[in-house]
Amino acid sequence: MASASPEPAATETGDSVKIRRLEIADRERGFLPLLSQLSSCPDLTESEFAACFANLAALGDDHVILVAEDPAAAPERRILSTGCLFVERKFLRGGGKTAKDAGCYKVILDCTPELRAYYAKCGFVEKGVQMAVYF
Amino acid sequence: MASASPEPAATETGDSVKIRRLEIADRERGFLPLLSQLSSCPDLTESEFAACFANLAALGDDHVILVAEDPAAAPERRILSTGCLFVERKFLRGGGKTAKDAGCYKVILDCTPELRAYYAKCGFVEKGVQMAVYF
Repeated sequence: MASASPEPAATETGDSVKIRRLEIADRERGFLPLLSQLSSCPDLTESEFAACFANLAALGDDHVILVAEDPAAAPERRILSTGCLFVERKFLRGGGKTAKDAGCYKVILDCTPELRAYYAKCGFVEKGVQMAVYF
Repeated sequence: MASASPEPAATETGDSVKIRRLEIADRERGFLPLLSQLSSCPDLTESEFAACFANLAALGDDHVILVAEDPAAAPERRILSTGCLFVERKFLRGGGKTAKDAGCYKVILDCTPELRAYYAKCGFVEKGVQMAVYF
């Protein structure tokens, strides 16, 4: 998940980690090897990556992939972590959406049980369980 | 959540429940009172509802609200349940997406612990915890 720490995250050198939207050049900054820590992630050619990126970009500002960039690794701009942000459209709460700056009333995320304490420090509380089915 | 039962869901009269995309006329079929069972859901005027509906429709087929319609309540077409379906864009698994018919490799959902057994019957397994922060 993208960092959402109560304090700005910092590297060992004390520099603040920069969280920003995925750029097409992140293919060269370790984005795919990072994803391979989460699940199967075969390499994508430059054109396959560009096609995925274009599909994502077409969805606008309510469905974005964020990355945390290591300031200590400049000029390589290595990617430390990543996460996906959806803004869900709702009819309840007067047509509310689900991040504060976007006019949303809550943020939810799914994580492994080991990360409960980390997200609790960020103000999150446990609300339910995540279920999955794979094809 | 929208029904995703291993067998087609049926009402007390044995008719199959119909799952379909939200229609603008569902405002008159009990959609908002249904949502009020989940969270605060002040009434929306016809034009407010239409504006929310238009915002949602503009997002295309990868972000939709589904409803389950009670066939026993025809011609009123009362809404029994509802859920939101996102198709998440990913770069892992060769640019995989997250419902089978849409070329996705998995479906995930969040629910209360009491619903674990229901979703297990549908083939889901517990994968993590859901955390939330409210503004």
